[in-house]
Amino acid sequence: MPCPGKRRDTGCPITFALDMFGDRWSLLIIRDLMLKGSKAYGDFLEAPERIATNILADRLKYLESMGIIRKSCDPGHRRRYLYSLTEKGGDLAPIIVEMICWAGKHDPHTKVKDKTLKQIENDRKGFAAEIRARLTLISR
Amino acid sequence: MPCPGKRRDTGCPITFALDMFGDRWSLLIIRDLMLKGSKAYGDFLEAPERIATNILADRLKYLESMGIIRKSCDPGHRRRYLYSLTEKGGDLAPIIVEMICWAGKHDPHTKVKDKTLKQIENDRKGFAAEIRARLTLISR
Repeated sequence: MPCPGKRRDTGCPITFALDMFGDRWSLLIIRDLMLKGSKAYGDFLEAPERIATNILADRLKYLESMGIIRKSCDPGHRRRYLYSLTEKGGDLAPIIVEMICWAGKHDPHTKVKDKTLKQIENDRKGFAAEIRARLTLISR
Repeated sequence: MPCPGKRRDTGCPITFALDMFGDRWSLLIIRDLMLKGSKAYGDFLEAPERIATNILADRLKYLESMGIIRKSCDPGHRRRYLYSLTEKGGDLAPIIVEMICWAGKHDPHTKVKDKTLKQIENDRKGFAAEIRARLTLISR
């Protein structure tokens, strides 16, 4: 779980990354934004992992404060917000791609298709770029 | 934090990956095994993040049960164990490489050198393979 109060600028890239998104729920929110087209608060609640509303609210706020996601007003619904990945958040695509690849290899129950794994194997950079291209990235 | 009791075989690669190593401490242990040459219990305690002994013992046990690390007797010291990454654990190298890359770009205090980032940019696969080659991988 991210601990903003305990965050230290050690310069270690792994510590930095974990401080930013290194808990289960944050990465599931990023997954939903990146791969499932989730945008509204209610979309995240529909994920099969069943995130609790207080945790969801907390993580959305945290990810926004870290500059990974951005909240904007839904032009179609007053009082509703939409969430999207920033440039910094979109840059997480290669990490997500490598996680897909690793799980595709090691999870006996994986839903990742062989075709997808081969596609990644042949062109990792292109695959991550495709994911990014589908996102509406908002630079901060 | 990994929740083995709550683990479900959803087939989602991100959920699977997070169930396996998706907490801050597990990934720091993997980092130390992969990049810092840590092997013994005491090595992990020396990391600047100051992992507590009970959490360390818990995570080592968990990662071993998930087939990511392996414990073996230290031939030089009776009663002491050494930890190493399995083949499955070594396969996490590309994820770690992408985290280095992301933090190198977004952490203003990063210790990741430009040279390293360029090296990754030019040959991600080769960079991850180099890390793996330095490990003594033990197949399970």
